[in-house]
Amino acid sequence: MKLGIIGTGSVAQLVGAKLILAGHDVVFGTRDVEATLKRTDTDAFGNAPFRVWLKSNADAKLSTFEAAAAHGEMILNATGGMVSLQALELAGVENFAGKILIDVANPLDFSAGFPPSLSVCNTDSLGEQIQRAIPDAKVVKTLNTMSAHVMVDPTLVPGAHNIFVAGNDAEAKAKVSKLLSEGLGWSPESILDLGDITMARGTEMLLPIWVRLFGSFGHPNFNFHVAKGEAPKP
Amino acid sequence: MKLGIIGTGSVAQLVGAKLILAGHDVVFGTRDVEATLKRTDTDAFGNAPFRVWLKSNADAKLSTFEAAAAHGEMILNATGGMVSLQALELAGVENFAGKILIDVANPLDFSAGFPPSLSVCNTDSLGEQIQRAIPDAKVVKTLNTMSAHVMVDPTLVPGAHNIFVAGNDAEAKAKVSKLLSEGLGWSPESILDLGDITMARGTEMLLPIWVRLFGSFGHPNFNFHVAKGEAPKP
Repeated sequence: MKLGIIGTGSVAQLVGAKLILAGHDVVFGTRDVEATLKRTDTDAFGNAPFRVWLKSNADAKLSTFEAAAAHGEMILNATGGMVSLQALELAGVENFAGKILIDVANPLDFSAGFPPSLSVCNTDSLGEQIQRAIPDAKVVKTLNTMSAHVMVDPTLVPGAHNIFVAGNDAEAKAKVSKLLSEGLGWSPESILDLGDITMARGTEMLLPIWVRLFGSFGHPNFNFHVAKGEAPKP
Repeated sequence: MKLGIIGTGSVAQLVGAKLILAGHDVVFGTRDVEATLKRTDTDAFGNAPFRVWLKSNADAKLSTFEAAAAHGEMILNATGGMVSLQALELAGVENFAGKILIDVANPLDFSAGFPPSLSVCNTDSLGEQIQRAIPDAKVVKTLNTMSAHVMVDPTLVPGAHNIFVAGNDAEAKAKVSKLLSEGLGWSPESILDLGDITMARGTEMLLPIWVRLFGSFGHPNFNFHVAKGEAPKP
């Protein structure tokens, strides 16, 4: 499938590489192609700059936000949550019309230092903001409750654990679930449909506890699981 | 141990009954003892009124908020989150001095209907508000991420799942963990210490997803588990 990935950070790189490996035709979108290719700094997590990553991922194509969105039959928002709305606007709202937009971002605001707070939550979410900004897209919120490495390799976490999906369009969620399963390795029984896009709130609101556990464990190889028992006898 | 339970709802009843069974001396506190004993209505979840419950729990003692707090060497806040601060104030701030206050409440605001929103979150929490209102108490947030039935019977949910504790005082968390373990049946390895009381935020912010899963499963016999893998190789 033709996929567009908005963003070039570690989530974009890891998810993109895995999807290219699965046979997809991926174009990465960035604000300024030349500037992205010139960057030599590693990110806050020690990941190499995009041009280094590109050397070992020769099938990856880098272009503008707009070209990546236009290319994708399905598009993935892998930008930082504080700049997602701006990046998607630059990509051109018309380039998402009728398409599935997978939103992986979390509205984490680090402006007051660590731990970050959420710039939106409780009665709204980034997923909903994106759906409102691009009403013709079928926004599916998923992948945002774990580290980028776990996203593309669920076996890093032993035993049963879940990946959540939320969105208004049932067919879109089914297609995204297929991509999660066949492209990224998530078993169908690990995929938990939370309902409509308002449940992006619930998943984004897992971040404060995720961030704390990351600090306390000292590594990001963990994930949430919803353990479920039988209904009570009447 | 002498325990005070602030509140007489289903959480108070279920947790109280289990702790009485474990040998504790429990006084329940209510705003108006006479009014509570007169009530004949079941609550929103179909639980019987306190006076019916009292018939099969003869060792339970009902008194005022103040008397319950004064009685307890350890006190449990099992009131609704929207009225907790008021109830604890009525119980008398001085009655909590130097004591452990277990906060089970969630600040769920149903005033705009279902699903509820949180009246406080992200940069603050009910647990923190209570700690600020009663600085001499050792507030430990726990038990608030599951149904009352799961609180007192973890075996309702199969497999591994967690109960979180958060609070500023390490010794208080150790004592509460002992109560969770010996009094309510939580295995030591299921108890996950999230750190200081600011992490009450993280646990209270699990409620939106909990409420949605409750609706989608049709019953409350489920719980969160943090599945943890090995640290990445350097």
